[in-house]
Order: sequence, then C-alpha cells, then structure tokens
Amino acid sequence: MNTHYPSTLLENAVNEFAKLPGIGKKTALRLVLHLLRQDDGQVETFSSSIATLKREVRYCACCHNISDSEVCDICSDKSRDASLICVVENVKEVMAIENTVQFKGLYHVLGGIISPIDGIAPSDLEIASLVERVSSGEVKEVILALSATMEGDTTNFYIYRKLQAFGVKISIIARGVSIGDEIEYADEVTLGRSILNRTPFDESYKLVAK
Amino acid sequence: MNTHYPSTLLENAVNEFAKLPGIGKKTALRLVLHLLRQDDGQVETFSSSIATLKREVRYCACCHNISDSEVCDICSDKSRDASLICVVENVKEVMAIENTVQFKGLYHVLGGIISPIDGIAPSDLEIASLVERVSSGEVKEVILALSATMEGDTTNFYIYRKLQAFGVKISIIARGVSIGDEIEYADEVTLGRSILNRTPFDESYKLVAK
Repeated sequence: MNTHYPSTLLENAVNEFAKLPGIGKKTALRLVLHLLRQDDGQVETFSSSIATLKREVRYCACCHNISDSEVCDICSDKSRDASLICVVENVKEVMAIENTVQFKGLYHVLGGIISPIDGIAPSDLEIASLVERVSSGEVKEVILALSATMEGDTTNFYIYRKLQAFGVKISIIARGVSIGDEIEYADEVTLGRSILNRTPFDESYKLVAK
Repeated sequence: MNTHYPSTLLENAVNEFAKLPGIGKKTALRLVLHLLRQDDGQVETFSSSIATLKREVRYCACCHNISDSEVCDICSDKSRDASLICVVENVKEVMAIENTVQFKGLYHVLGGIISPIDGIAPSDLEIASLVERVSSGEVKEVILALSATMEGDTTNFYIYRKLQAFGVKISIIARGVSIGDEIEYADEVTLGRSILNRTPFDESYKLVAK
C-alpha cells in the first residue's frame, strides 16, 4: 500500500518511528499523532531524552554495563561479592537478574553473543576485558548467564576455554522446566536436561523459598 | 515491579517512551536500547524528526488537515470536486479514505468528536469553520464519515442541526456488514441497519468492482 501523507514532515517522523523494531507504519502514525497532540514541552522532553542518552551515555569501566559514572553503582557497591562474576549479554539481562534479588556478585556485560550469521565475532564483545578481570586473581567463580541458544552455547564454550587456565570455578545457570510449567508440555531437550542436572530436594526449595 | 535502572539517563528515556500509547516499560526499554545501538546520526535524525514536526507543523487554512503549506494539496487540487465535503475526525481518516481512491471531493477535519467524558465540547472542534465553509454557498453535499459510536452519532446529529438551515444535502457513510464478513457472525445492530439501509443490487456492485 502506497500511503499518501498530507505532509512530508509527518511522513519523515512516521518513517523514523517505523524503523524501530516491532513498530509498523500504522503504529508509527498512531504514536506520532499522539505526540503531536501533546504540549510543546512534552514533545521536547521526549525528543531530547533519547538524544541526551545517546550523547551522554557511559559504560562502566569495570563491567561495561550502562552507567552514569565511571564505575557503575553495582561495581562500586562494597557490600557485593567481587569474587563472583555473572556474565550476561546486555543491560536488559542485568536488570532482569537484579530484579530477582537472588544475586549479590558483580556482572560482566559482553555487549552481545558470538553470532557468525550477524557478523559478531569474539573480538566485537567484551571478552578480553573479562579475561583481564579474571586474571587479576580476585575472582573465584564465573557464572555464565547467556541465552540457551546455539549462539549462547558457542559463546559459553569460547569463554570457558579462555578462562580454563586461570583455575576459577565456571558455572552455567540452571536449565530446566520453568516454574509454573506442566511437565506434559515441556520440550524434550529441556526435560532431558532437567533430569540430568537434577538438584537435591532440600537444596532446590531453599532457593525458591528464600 | 520496581525496576532498577543502571542509569538515570536510560531511565528517563525509557519513561518517555513508555508514555506513548500501547508501549509498556518492557517495550520502551527494548526500543531505547535499539536506538542506543544505532549511529549518532541515526539517533539525531530520529530525535529531530519529531521535534521538527511539532515545531513546524501547519494545518490547512481550509480543511484543517496537517499540511506543509497554507492550503493543503487536496484543497488546492483543482481537479477535485469542491462542492462535496467529507467530514472526518482526524488526519488518519483522511489518509484511510484517500487510500480507497473512491472519493474525489474535499475534506473537513474536525480534530476529534464531541465527547463529554473526555471534556471535548463542540467549541473544541472545527465545527464553526465547517458551518462557514458551507455558508459560502459553494457546497452541495456534506458526507459525515465519523466513527459509528455514541460520540460519533452525537457529533453527526450536532453538525446536522447546524447545517440544516443551508439546504445542503447531508449524508452519512453506509453502515453495514463489512466486506468479507460472514452474516452469521455480524452483530445484530449492524445487521439490522444493513437491512434497513439496503442498496439496489446493481448500485452496490458498481462501487466495489470499480
């Protein structure tokens, strides 16, 4: 459908919004017209919020998470366990794990996972800086919390080989049946893995009950 | 859930995106992180597109649709029938009707419909300017193309009373069973209306076949 826009300014704005993932032309038009109905100040705040973020965003010198300061709040929190590093793909995963309130160590944000199909090589990720952190000798355990996909597995294996020499404990977050899921509907690979990696009864409930 | 953001700049941007209709905090975060991965130039283009639209947007002096010029392309198109005015709620409806390629008259954009619940009174809409256009004597027919809702009906009736005195033909777009719908599943009100407002057989197909 070749939509006719009454104004090129409107068309430009709609096209920009439609570049966002999951936003089609119809939704983009709805969002732009919504903003157009707001006060000048509100639109200015919206528009500058993303420009300012892009211009002033900083990444923690230690874990490479997005941060407002040289070293992020998590890395500079002395009450957290600096001997425990959880390796994640991106800031979203840090936020998801922080929300569980189950982890008291530090993070290391890779900035993606190895994916030849998307042209992402190990050198594009913060793997060298992870090796450096581990080589300092302060780290006792590295937890790999990457996606349970082919790319995640590849990255896990790559990191495992890089860190093996340092003699740190390397673990992977548990993969198994999601809490709330019925066994009947779990896929076979997950179910098989959950049987192989079974947990002692009282240990398993300790974690959930908190 | 009280999400912890690693940066207030990030949090501000996410909160701004989450104010958009249909965009929750999770989607907002996904969109902001997507933009953060783009080039500086792309983010600047995105951010300025909406700011520029808001700053420079103009409304057609005649039909009040969004326009790049004093009078919009449709109103200034001499090949269109100026004696026929289609009254719509907003720019989205102009675009939808233009896409049908079935209408060759002009539009009048009200900027909303009468809705006491949302505090929208007739004086907030472009009704006085519609009356003025009709009073010029050039207009022969006014087509009301508002939503088939209580608010749309109220607005239709209000406009009808305002225009009655000028002796122009006032019509409402057909309401009936949508093309492609099965009669079995059509709601009773629509079906009843479609029987009352039935169309002579050959007239009905003329429009669809084109």
